[in-house]
Amino acid sequence: MERGADGAGARLRTAAEYRASLRDGRRVYYRGQAVKDVTTHPVLAHAVDHAALDYEMAHDERYRALAVGPGGHSRYFHVPQDAEGLLARSALIEASTRAGKTLVLLIKEIGTDALLALLAMRAQLGEPYAARIDAYYEHCRENDLAMCVAQTDVKGDRSLGPSQQPNDTAYLRIVERRPDGIVVRGAKTHTSVSINANELMVLPTRAMTEADADYAVAFAVPVDTPGLRLVASPYLATDGKREPEHPLSAGRKMVETTTLFEDVFVPSERVFMDGRHELAGALARGFVEFHRFTAISYKLPLVDALVGAGLLAARVNGLERAGHVRDKLSWLIAYAETLRAMTHHAAGRCRVIDGVAVPDTLLVNIAKLQFAQGLHTAFQHVQDISGGLLATYPAIEDLEHPEYGAALSRYMEAAPGFSGGERMRVLSMISDLTTGDYGGYQAVLAIHAEGSIEAEKLTILAQYDRDGAMRYASWLAGLDDAPWPPS
Amino acid sequence: MERGADGAGARLRTAAEYRASLRDGRRVYYRGQAVKDVTTHPVLAHAVDHAALDYEMAHDERYRALAVGPGGHSRYFHVPQDAEGLLARSALIEASTRAGKTLVLLIKEIGTDALLALLAMRAQLGEPYAARIDAYYEHCRENDLAMCVAQTDVKGDRSLGPSQQPNDTAYLRIVERRPDGIVVRGAKTHTSVSINANELMVLPTRAMTEADADYAVAFAVPVDTPGLRLVASPYLATDGKREPEHPLSAGRKMVETTTLFEDVFVPSERVFMDGRHELAGALARGFVEFHRFTAISYKLPLVDALVGAGLLAARVNGLERAGHVRDKLSWLIAYAETLRAMTHHAAGRCRVIDGVAVPDTLLVNIAKLQFAQGLHTAFQHVQDISGGLLATYPAIEDLEHPEYGAALSRYMEAAPGFSGGERMRVLSMISDLTTGDYGGYQAVLAIHAEGSIEAEKLTILAQYDRDGAMRYASWLAGLDDAPWPPS
Amino acid sequence: MERGADGAGARLRTAAEYRASLRDGRRVYYRGQAVKDVTTHPVLAHAVDHAALDYEMAHDERYRALAVGPGGHSRYFHVPQDAEGLLARSALIEASTRAGKTLVLLIKEIGTDALLALLAMRAQLGEPYAARIDAYYEHCRENDLAMCVAQTDVKGDRSLGPSQQPNDTAYLRIVERRPDGIVVRGAKTHTSVSINANELMVLPTRAMTEADADYAVAFAVPVDTPGLRLVASPYLATDGKREPEHPLSAGRKMVETTTLFEDVFVPSERVFMDGRHELAGALARGFVEFHRFTAISYKLPLVDALVGAGLLAARVNGLERAGHVRDKLSWLIAYAETLRAMTHHAAGRCRVIDGVAVPDTLLVNIAKLQFAQGLHTAFQHVQDISGGLLATYPAIEDLEHPEYGAALSRYMEAAPGFSGGERMRVLSMISDLTTGDYGGYQAVLAIHAEGSIEAEKLTILAQYDRDGAMRYASWLAGLDDAPWPPS
Amino acid sequence: MERGADGAGARLRTAAEYRASLRDGRRVYYRGQAVKDVTTHPVLAHAVDHAALDYEMAHDERYRALAVGPGGHSRYFHVPQDAEGLLARSALIEASTRAGKTLVLLIKEIGTDALLALLAMRAQLGEPYAARIDAYYEHCRENDLAMCVAQTDVKGDRSLGPSQQPNDTAYLRIVERRPDGIVVRGAKTHTSVSINANELMVLPTRAMTEADADYAVAFAVPVDTPGLRLVASPYLATDGKREPEHPLSAGRKMVETTTLFEDVFVPSERVFMDGRHELAGALARGFVEFHRFTAISYKLPLVDALVGAGLLAARVNGLERAGHVRDKLSWLIAYAETLRAMTHHAAGRCRVIDGVAVPDTLLVNIAKLQFAQGLHTAFQHVQDISGGLLATYPAIEDLEHPEYGAALSRYMEAAPGFSGGERMRVLSMISDLTTGDYGGYQAVLAIHAEGSIEAEKLTILAQYDRDGAMRYASWLAGLDDAPWPPS
Repeated sequence: MERGADGAGARLRTAAEYRASLRDGRRVYYRGQAVKDVTTHPVLAHAVDHAALDYEMAHDERYRALAVGPGGHSRYFHVPQDAEGLLARSALIEASTRAGKTLVLLIKEIGTDALLALLAMRAQLGEPYAARIDAYYEHCRENDLAMCVAQTDVKGDRSLGPSQQPNDTAYLRIVERRPDGIVVRGAKTHTSVSINANELMVLPTRAMTEADADYAVAFAVPVDTPGLRLVASPYLATDGKREPEHPLSAGRKMVETTTLFEDVFVPSERVFMDGRHELAGALARGFVEFHRFTAISYKLPLVDALVGAGLLAARVNGLERAGHVRDKLSWLIAYAETLRAMTHHAAGRCRVIDGVAVPDTLLVNIAKLQFAQGLHTAFQHVQDISGGLLATYPAIEDLEHPEYGAALSRYMEAAPGFSGGERMRVLSMISDLTTGDYGGYQAVLAIHAEGSIEAEKLTILAQYDRDGAMRYASWLAGLDDAPWPPS
Repeated sequence: MERGADGAGARLRTAAEYRASLRDGRRVYYRGQAVKDVTTHPVLAHAVDHAALDYEMAHDERYRALAVGPGGHSRYFHVPQDAEGLLARSALIEASTRAGKTLVLLIKEIGTDALLALLAMRAQLGEPYAARIDAYYEHCRENDLAMCVAQTDVKGDRSLGPSQQPNDTAYLRIVERRPDGIVVRGAKTHTSVSINANELMVLPTRAMTEADADYAVAFAVPVDTPGLRLVASPYLATDGKREPEHPLSAGRKMVETTTLFEDVFVPSERVFMDGRHELAGALARGFVEFHRFTAISYKLPLVDALVGAGLLAARVNGLERAGHVRDKLSWLIAYAETLRAMTHHAAGRCRVIDGVAVPDTLLVNIAKLQFAQGLHTAFQHVQDISGGLLATYPAIEDLEHPEYGAALSRYMEAAPGFSGGERMRVLSMISDLTTGDYGGYQAVLAIHAEGSIEAEKLTILAQYDRDGAMRYASWLAGLDDAPWPPS
Repeated sequence: MERGADGAGARLRTAAEYRASLRDGRRVYYRGQAVKDVTTHPVLAHAVDHAALDYEMAHDERYRALAVGPGGHSRYFHVPQDAEGLLARSALIEASTRAGKTLVLLIKEIGTDALLALLAMRAQLGEPYAARIDAYYEHCRENDLAMCVAQTDVKGDRSLGPSQQPNDTAYLRIVERRPDGIVVRGAKTHTSVSINANELMVLPTRAMTEADADYAVAFAVPVDTPGLRLVASPYLATDGKREPEHPLSAGRKMVETTTLFEDVFVPSERVFMDGRHELAGALARGFVEFHRFTAISYKLPLVDALVGAGLLAARVNGLERAGHVRDKLSWLIAYAETLRAMTHHAAGRCRVIDGVAVPDTLLVNIAKLQFAQGLHTAFQHVQDISGGLLATYPAIEDLEHPEYGAALSRYMEAAPGFSGGERMRVLSMISDLTTGDYGGYQAVLAIHAEGSIEAEKLTILAQYDRDGAMRYASWLAGLDDAPWPPS
Repeated sequence: MERGADGAGARLRTAAEYRASLRDGRRVYYRGQAVKDVTTHPVLAHAVDHAALDYEMAHDERYRALAVGPGGHSRYFHVPQDAEGLLARSALIEASTRAGKTLVLLIKEIGTDALLALLAMRAQLGEPYAARIDAYYEHCRENDLAMCVAQTDVKGDRSLGPSQQPNDTAYLRIVERRPDGIVVRGAKTHTSVSINANELMVLPTRAMTEADADYAVAFAVPVDTPGLRLVASPYLATDGKREPEHPLSAGRKMVETTTLFEDVFVPSERVFMDGRHELAGALARGFVEFHRFTAISYKLPLVDALVGAGLLAARVNGLERAGHVRDKLSWLIAYAETLRAMTHHAAGRCRVIDGVAVPDTLLVNIAKLQFAQGLHTAFQHVQDISGGLLATYPAIEDLEHPEYGAALSRYMEAAPGFSGGERMRVLSMISDLTTGDYGGYQAVLAIHAEGSIEAEKLTILAQYDRDGAMRYASWLAGLDDAPWPPS
C-alpha cells in the first residue's frame, strides 16, 4: 500500500494485496464444483492474473502517469469533468487492454461506469440515496477495490415485463423490506469479472412500470455476501492451451457468471434505488452509455491488433504487393481508425451532467454499432490474408522435433526475412485471435456486450435531431418557402 | 463594393459585380454553340445564379459572420492556422452548400484549396515562385475573385506516363519558353465552374519523372485569356425542368468543361512551377488533400438531406413505426454523423505546415472513402422508404387540374397531417435528389471527384502507421518478449 | 393479320394494327393536358413505339420461333405446363427486353401474368367466374391484345385495412351492384403501360377481411371504357434527349399512370371476383408470383448490360489489368449469372397447379431480392470503372465541331483501338444506363416493382421449410437422439 | 466384405475393415510424438470415427440407395456421365456431411475428385499414363479405399515459380528418375484426412513452365510408403470437450497434415504425370473444379444448420416476431438456398469431357465464392439472434447440480415450451458451431479450402463470356448499328 502523489492518503493496492483480497468466503462454482480459492484454480486463476495487471500497471513507472489520477487514486475513480478527463480515462482503458493483449481487464472500468452513472443521477434520486452513493463511491476509491456489475436479468419471456412474467424468476426483485435493509432474490446473467472482484453492484436492466416497483432496485454488496452464488461459465477455458500456440488466450481469461441471489440481504446504506420504477430506465441507460464509451475504448487494441495482424500476415506471407491484399488492408485501417476517431470525438463533444462529463451518446452508439457490425468482416479479411495455415499449422513441438523439425521449419518459410518458426508464431497468434474460442468470445461480445446491435440502433434513432433533419428536407421540398434553409 | 469590418479595405464583391465580371471575352461552348454571355444563357445562367449565392451570403446578415473572415475578406481567403480556422472554413462550406440545396458553390472553395496547397509549398518551390504565389494569392483575395482549378489531364493510355504517350495530347505541356513567360498546349478535363470563374489555376495531376519536365507546370490565367476554350458538358441540363417537380435541379447547376489550351501564353509572374518534376506529385497531392477536406465538408448537406428525406418520407407515408424503416433510418443517421464527426475530428487533428493548418490526411481520406462507398446504399434506403411514386408520381399540373385535381390529390394522401400535394412535393424532391441526373451527378462525384475510391484507399494505406501496428502484432505473437507492449 | 403456323386461325397483329387500336376514346392526360392520340404525342409516342417491338418481333424471322407459341398465337398466351414452357416464356421476355435495350415491353407479360394467376384459381373461384376467365383469356389471345394490370391501390393510411380507412378513397371498391354488372370507384397507382394497352385488368392488392368484401374485386375492361381516366406520370420524359447521348432513353419509354375509376361500369362477364374477400390475398399473391418470375426474366438484359458496360468501360479506358477493376468485374458477373441461374432453376423446380406450371416461389423471391438489393452496388461498380466523364462528357455536337472537334476527339482517346468518339459513345450509354432518370427508373423499379424488398423477405420466410431446418438443428443440439439426422 | 447388388463382386468394406486397414506402418506425428495407432489415439481416433461413417452409411438400409452406386461399389467411384450422375454424387456428399454433423467425411470425396480429373485428362496425358490411371481407379474402387490428396505445395516466396525459388524446398519435385519409378522430395501442406486414408494422391498445384518440369508430377502411393511422414496439425483438438457442450466437435474431427516426402520412391505404374509442365495447370485446375463442386455440396448441411440454428434460437429465445430477427432469418434462408440452387443448377448445366460429366465451372465458382464471402456474416446473424449466452452459458454440470441446478435451469428458460436445459443445449450447439475452434475451422475452410476467394474470382472472370457481354454493350452504345441486338 502506498500514498498518493498529493500525500492525501490515496490507497493504491498491489497485485498481491488484490489477490489476497479474493481469498474470502465467496461461493464460486466451476463446472459444478465449488472453488475454494479462485487465485489458485487451474482455470480461474488466469482470470485473476489477467485482472491483476491493473494493479501492476499502477505501480509501474511506465504507466503510472496514466493509471494514477489527479488525487493519487486509480484514475478510474477520477470523475471526468471535461473532454480531457474522458480522454485520459479512455487512454487508460486502451493502454491496459493493450497490455492485456486485446482482452479488457474490466475490474475498475465497469464498476466506475456504474458509479459515474449513479453520481450523475444523484439529483434525481435525492436523499438518502445521493449521500449513500457518495459514501460508496469513496469507499471503493479509497480502498482501490475491484468491482463488477450485475445488470442483465435472465428476462424469461421477452414479450413480457418483469411483473408480467408467469413465474417470479425472470427479474431480480425485492422479496422483503426490513428496517435495516432489503432482501433480494433472483438471478443476473453475463456478470463479468465477478469471481475476481471485491464488490458487486446491481442495476436495473430496463425501463419499468409502476407494477414493477419491486424490480426497480439498485445496490451494492461485497462478493462474499451470504446468499450470493457465482456460477462461472466454462466458455473460454484455458485447458490444454500452450503459450506459443495460443499467445493470447493460453494464460489470460475473463469470466462471466450466472449470479444467483438466494435471498441476499442488502443493508440500507448500500441500497441506491428501491422502488423508483420511473427512474429504472434512466439508470439502466445511464450506466450503459458510460459502459459503451468504455467499450469503444477497450476495443481499440483489438482493432489495432487486427490491422497489425493483417499487415504482418501480408509481410510474412510475401503478399504485401497483391492488389486484393492491399484492398483488405485499407479496409482494416479505415475500420480501426474510424473507431478511434469516433471515440475521441465523442469525448470531445461531451456534455456535463451533475458534475460528470458524459460522452456524446449519439457518437458513442454509432462507433459501437460500426465496430460491432464490422468485426466479423475484419476477421474474414485477416483470415483471408493469413491463409489456410491458420487451421492446419504444425505444432510447436513438431517445429522443434530433433528429427524433422529443421526441415519442417524450412518448409514453413515464405517471405525472405522470416524464419518458418517466426511465421508460424504470427499465424498461430492470428489463429488464436480470430478462429478459436477467443475469437468467438470477441465476436459475441462485439454483438451483445454493452447492449446489442439493435439496442444501439434504437439509441441512434432516439438521440439524433430528427426534427432538424426533417426541417431541412421540408425546405428542400419547398414546403417551407424561406429564402435560406433552417439552421 | 464595400469595406471590411476592420476598415482595412477588403473588397467583398456583390452578386451583381460578380455577374458583370463574367461578361468578358471568354470562349465558352455549349453543345457546339459559342456562348455570348454565360449570365443569360438559358442553361448556363443557372450555374451563374447558383454560384452567385456565395456573394449574396457575404452580404446577408445571417451569414456575414461565417462568410467574412478576420481580415474582412471572404473567409475562403483566410489561411487557417489551427483547428479553429479549419472548422470555420468547413462550416462556411457546409452552410453555403446547405443554402445551395446540397450542390456546392465551389467558386471559392476549390481555388483556395489550390492557393493553400501552393502556399504550403512555398519553401520547397523557392523563389521567385514563392513571391509569385504570395502576390497571386493577394490578387485573388483583394479582388474577391471566383476561381476554378484545372488539374485532371485527359491522360490517354493509363499505363503510360506523360512523356511516354504515343501522341502529345494526353497531358498539358509547355511547348515554348519565352523570356516573359511560357506557352502551354493540351487539355484538362472535369474542370468545374470554369465557365463562371474569373481565374483559372492549373496544377499537375500526378507524380512525374525527369523526362516529364515539360509537363511539370503550374500557373494561373484569367478565364478570358486568348487560346483558352471551355467546352461545357451537356450533363445535368435544366431544360424542361419545373421547380416543384425538380426543386433541387430546376434552377441550379454546376458546369464542368473540357478545357482546351490552344497555345496559351502565361506571363512569368503567373507561373508557379516550371519543370520541377520532382515536386509535381507533392503539389498534386497537396491540392487534393485540401480539396478532399473541402469535399467532406460540402457533402454534409447532402447526407443531411438524405437522412431528412428518409425521415420525412417515412412520416408522409405513415411508415415511421415499421421495423425495417427504422433500421434503414438508423443506417442513414450513422452514415451522415460518421462523416460529420470524422470531418470535424480531422480538423481537430491538423498539423501546421509552413504556416498553413492541414487537416489530418488519414482521417480525411477515410471519411471521404466511407462517404463514397456508402452513397449508393443511402440512395437505395431512401428510395426504399419513399416508395414507387418516386418514378410514377402524377405531375403538379395534374394535381391542380380543375376537373380531377382535387380527387387525385386526395388519392395521394397517406399519413394524417399531410395533404396529397404536400406528400407529392416531398416525393418529388426525393426523386430529384436520388433518381434523376442530379442524383446521378452526386453519385458520380462521390466516386470520382477529388480523387477516386481507389486513390483514397492508397492514401489510407500510405498514411497509416503500419510499422506501429506491426510492432504490436509482433509483440502479441511473442516475437518481441518485452513485458509490456510497444507504445 | 396472319394465321398461325398450325392454320388454326391464330391472330398475330402487326405493329401498325396495334398502333391503330390505340386510337380510340381513351382519356389519357399528360401534365394536365388531355392527349388526343397517344401514338403521335411527342413524349408518349415513344412508349407506343417501344411496346410495338412486341408485334414486330412476332413477324421477324429472327424471333418468330421464340415469339410465337405452339398454337400460333403470341407465346405469351401459351399456358406453361412444365419447366420447358416456363423457360420458353422466360426466354421470350429476356429476348424482347434485350431488343428493347434493357427496358421491358410489358404489354403482354404483365397481362398474361394476371391471366395465368386467374386460370390457376379457377377451381377456387368456381362458376360462373371460371368460365368467364376462360372466355376472357381466349378473347385476349385470339385478338392478340395488349394488356395492363392495375393492382396497387393508393392505400391511404398504411396502418389500416380497406374498410377501416377514414375516407373511402384509399382502395378501389364496388359502389353499386346491378343485374348486368358492377360499378367501381377509386384509384390505382403505378399502372404500367396502360396508356398503350387495349385491356385493363384489375386485381386486389392484398389479403382482406369480411368487412372488406366490397374491395375484393377483380375484373377487366377495355381501356376506352367510360369513367376511366389515365393520368400519366411525367417521370422519364424524353424531352431534349438525343440518341447518341441517351442511346437507351431518347427514343423509348414506359409510362405509369395513376388510374382513376370514376364510377366505371363493368359488365358481369368481365367480373372475375366479387366479394370473395377470403380469396383476395391468394389472387393478389398468385399474380405477384407470376409477375416476379416475369421480373427476374426481364432483369437479365439489364444485368447483362451492366456487366458488358463494366467490361467495355474497362477496355476503352485501358483499365482491364487493374486489380480493383477485375475485382469489380467479377462481382458484376457473379451478380448477373446468379440471377440467371436462379431464374432458370426456379423454372426447373416448378409445380403444376390446375394445369398451370408455377415457378418455385422461394427461388423466385430469393432471385428477385438479390437482384433488388444489388442493383445500386452494380451501378456503383460500373460508374467506378467508367470514370468521371459519365457526368462531364462533352456533347456530340462538340466532338463534331468543325473548329475544335477533331482535337477534342483526340483528347478523349484512352486505350488504343478506340477513337475518342467511340469511347464517348460507350460512356454516354453508361451515363444513360446508370446516372440519369433512366438509371433512376431502373433503381426504383428494382426496389418497388412487383413487390418491395420487404415483401420479398416475408415471402422467403413464409415459403421456406422452417420446420425441417429446425429439426436438423435440434438433432445437432442433441434434443433428438436419433442416430441419423432427420431427412 | 460383401458383394454388390449386381453380383459383380464389388467390394464394400465395413467400418471395422476400414479401421483395421489404418493399422499399418504409417508414420503419423501429433505434437511431436509418433502415433502408433491412429484408431486409438485420444485425439486422432475421433477423425477415424468420423470418417468411418462413410462405411457405416453404405451398410445402412437408410442410406444404401444413395451410398452405393450402379455397379455395387461406393457411389463415389461412379463416374458421372450426366446431370443425374452429378446430382446423385452431390446428394451423397450432402447426406454424409449432414450425418457427420456439418463436417465433411472426405475420405472418398476428395480422392474421387482427383480420379475424375485424371480420367478426364487421359486423352491429353496419353499412354502409358491413361492406362495407369484406369488401373489405379479400378484398384481404389474395387478395394473401396479411403483416399487423400496432397496438392498444395508450401510455395516459399509467392512471387517466384517452382524452379525460381532460392532453395529447393518450396515445391515437391522429382529428385531421381529410375527405370522402375521416380523419387520425390519436398512437402505438401493442408493435406486433409491423410492420417486416416489408405491412399495418398499427389497433384501439381499450379501452372508451370518448361524450367519447372521436375515439379510437374502426379502420382499415388499407399500412406504407409517409406519416406512419407505425416505431421498432424494440433488445430481443432478434442481435448476437454464434452458432448452436450460441444455436440458437434467433441467427438468428431478432421485432420490436416503437413506431409513430408523424404525421398519417396514411386513405382512407375503409379506415376500419372512426369515432366509434362504444359499440362500441370490443366490437371491442377481440373481437380480443383471437381473439388469445388464437392465443396459446394458439402457446405449445404452447414448452411442448413445455420438457418436451423437461427430459427431455433429465435424460437427458444422467444424472438420469432421481432422485425430484425425476421430480417436476419430471411437473409440466412436466401444465403442457404442460393447455394443449394446454384449447386444443383451447376450439375444441370454440366458438359461431358472424355466421358466424365463436369459441372458448370462458372456456376460452381460463383456458388463457392458467395458461400465463402457470406459465412462470416451468417455467423454474425446467428450469434446476434442467439444472444450473449453463447459465450457465458453455465456448464451442464451446473444445470445438473443437486443444490442449485433446478433453480439455474429455471432461470435459463425463455420462450414457453422449452426447458432451461433444452435452451442451453441449443445455445451450446450454436456456440460450438460458430464461436469456437470448430466455427473457426469452418470459417478458414470457407475462405481457403478448394482455392481461395481470389482464385474463385479469377476463375469467374476467365469462364464468363466476356465478348458476348461486350457485344451487347457495344450495340446498346450504338457502335453496332444492327437493328436487333447480337444474340
